[in-house]
Amino acid sequence: MIILGIDPGFERMGCAVLEKNSLGEKLLYSSCLISKRTDAHEKRLLCLYVGLKKIIKEHSPDTMAIEKLFFSNNQKTAIKVAEARGVAMLIAAENNLNVIEFTPLEVKMAMTGYGKAEKDQVRKMVLAILKIDGADKLDDEIDAIAIAISCPSKNYPQ
Amino acid sequence: MIILGIDPGFERMGCAVLEKNSLGEKLLYSSCLISKRTDAHEKRLLCLYVGLKKIIKEHSPDTMAIEKLFFSNNQKTAIKVAEARGVAMLIAAENNLNVIEFTPLEVKMAMTGYGKAEKDQVRKMVLAILKIDGADKLDDEIDAIAIAISCPSKNYPQ
Repeated sequence: MIILGIDPGFERMGCAVLEKNSLGEKLLYSSCLISKRTDAHEKRLLCLYVGLKKIIKEHSPDTMAIEKLFFSNNQKTAIKVAEARGVAMLIAAENNLNVIEFTPLEVKMAMTGYGKAEKDQVRKMVLAILKIDGADKLDDEIDAIAIAISCPSKNYPQ
Repeated sequence: MIILGIDPGFERMGCAVLEKNSLGEKLLYSSCLISKRTDAHEKRLLCLYVGLKKIIKEHSPDTMAIEKLFFSNNQKTAIKVAEARGVAMLIAAENNLNVIEFTPLEVKMAMTGYGKAEKDQVRKMVLAILKIDGADKLDDEIDAIAIAISCPSKNYPQ
């Protein structure tokens, strides 16, 4: 099972490709796709689309695990994030990926056993599970990995 | 100037292709793209994407006029509409369309001179301007035409 974890974002979209099998999890790839602030809105969406397509082409995931959105006080930003999330979902459909959605609470629960865990606790768990250093990884990248790890493994014997 | 007017929606996306020149406006095409309720979320986005691509291929617009979103009480629906809008904006970038965004108030102002005009007043103005019957046109389709008509014509002499 190869999972593409997505932390949806408009300025930065966290992406992680995780292989899960009966032996455990292995991180194949992670990054943040970053769109240019100076580009027009639609060009930034295209930049994310092209970046995601490249990752899918290179790693052939079968599943997309993506965070559900909730609305913050800043509705303008929330709309832009939802638009970027729509682009990610579109790519999932184009590539016949199985889509699984998680709330931030579910990801934190899966990672730490506590739905209101701090970012640092999630980071520590991600790095411990994968046995990697990861000091250079951005928060959105760590979140994308956490989302991928949270994804239940139904395709191989437990 | 060929304008693709978009009334963003997830279940129904209003689309209109309008030619504007010094002689006035001519409606080349309008429809509602309708996604299947029984399809998965991402498949519905793909259905809208494919439909929009087809319209662009057939009519070669140079400009996309699209409504800005504001958040209603139903945030869940609003997120889905924003995701569909993201797909439309992506297609604009893929096809190098000039994107112009309008608020619903701006469209109503442009069409009727009154920002709180009712749907019926907008409909009447749309049909009067284009000198068409349009009794068979859905509200979202009329809205897409209104958005396209609202688009300022900068590319030809006044």
